[in-house]
Amino acid sequence: MGEHTVTSFDEELNRIDQLLCEMGDLAGAMTQSATKALISSDNGLAQRVISDDAIMDAKQRELDERAITLIAKRQPMAQDLRAVVGAIRMAGDLERIGDLAKNVAKRVGAVGDSATPRSLAHSIDAMAQLVIVQVKSVIDQYVARQSEGLTSLRDEDEKIDIQYTSVFRELLTYMMEDPRNITACTHLLFCAKNLERIGDHVTNIAENAYYVMTGEQLPVQRPKLDETQMTVSAE
Amino acid sequence: MGEHTVTSFDEELNRIDQLLCEMGDLAGAMTQSATKALISSDNGLAQRVISDDAIMDAKQRELDERAITLIAKRQPMAQDLRAVVGAIRMAGDLERIGDLAKNVAKRVGAVGDSATPRSLAHSIDAMAQLVIVQVKSVIDQYVARQSEGLTSLRDEDEKIDIQYTSVFRELLTYMMEDPRNITACTHLLFCAKNLERIGDHVTNIAENAYYVMTGEQLPVQRPKLDETQMTVSAE
Repeated sequence: MGEHTVTSFDEELNRIDQLLCEMGDLAGAMTQSATKALISSDNGLAQRVISDDAIMDAKQRELDERAITLIAKRQPMAQDLRAVVGAIRMAGDLERIGDLAKNVAKRVGAVGDSATPRSLAHSIDAMAQLVIVQVKSVIDQYVARQSEGLTSLRDEDEKIDIQYTSVFRELLTYMMEDPRNITACTHLLFCAKNLERIGDHVTNIAENAYYVMTGEQLPVQRPKLDETQMTVSAE
Repeated sequence: MGEHTVTSFDEELNRIDQLLCEMGDLAGAMTQSATKALISSDNGLAQRVISDDAIMDAKQRELDERAITLIAKRQPMAQDLRAVVGAIRMAGDLERIGDLAKNVAKRVGAVGDSATPRSLAHSIDAMAQLVIVQVKSVIDQYVARQSEGLTSLRDEDEKIDIQYTSVFRELLTYMMEDPRNITACTHLLFCAKNLERIGDHVTNIAENAYYVMTGEQLPVQRPKLDETQMTVSAE
């Protein structure tokens, strides 16, 4: 394989990494704006998040096309192939994060500005800030090809789950206190669940990133925790 | 390109189609069992759905590996490439359907057997039956390479959305009537939302299937409808 071909493969892979970065930045920004829109009942900002989702989809399509073309043209092996396939998967998770942020934004109108108590807004915002840091961190670590931090980053998702469980309980309490809160609170419940799911996609990205870099699975799979589901065992 | 190579590509693509069928059957069966477990408070059945998800994941991994190997080894062009890439995407949607069915199953314990009124169980079951027919239908049509029915199949998703909106309202009513229903009803709300999202993934599969067969996008994109979100426009 000539020098030219090798350089060209790396260049194409760099372009794919760059697209991943852009998607990661957009995913973080959409999550940030959607949360802000929700807490401040800013319908204009919510609309911007909703339209940003089309940009995210376009970036994913571009990445997919570049990656597939790269596989077909250069037939990469081992780590190179893992990197290209991994990029497709990570882009899929970033696109889903964009969708989830959009779903939060879509509920801004339904939640309205009357029913959100300050303490609840604070809990949801705290959860969102954890999520946003995670999204940025996982992409930064992938692009720098640093695998060391990925395990702890995945384990950080537990904090988001704990925060979600607390928001879930807080919401139930408001609903029980006053039935007039129920409609707004159910929408907030979906918003909180969407943020929690963004954390799950960060975990997926961390697992893929680790696999791309090492060829191995991230050690010790943490069991997925949504305490609010309270699974009852069969026996 | 020799006869042998062509046959071999088709054989490998057939194996991928077969895996898609198996994933489609499993997705339908998981959705059916999860709904049944939910309505009859059958924790044993719920556990089976949860463990079936590992089988789904394994099938997706096998399909992914076969598809990527096929692209790298045979460098398919045009329709052949679309079929392989399309299979990866459809498998991704089927895997998500399995996840959503698993999420419904995980809530069976939390919902319990006390709080579900008959009429509500009926509404959720009716919604699930629509979804299950859709899952089976989209895979059948893809494997038979029949593109004619895909447009109407996608439009059928609207019926699921309407049913979801009705379940959503019914649930809010139960919560408002009696605060003791709130916890169980919020879990049912997530279950109904998961079923509605399975319908969305069927739509994605229909769009991918159409693209594989025709090289074109499904005509007239229906705007995504979740009436319960009641988006407020920016102005």
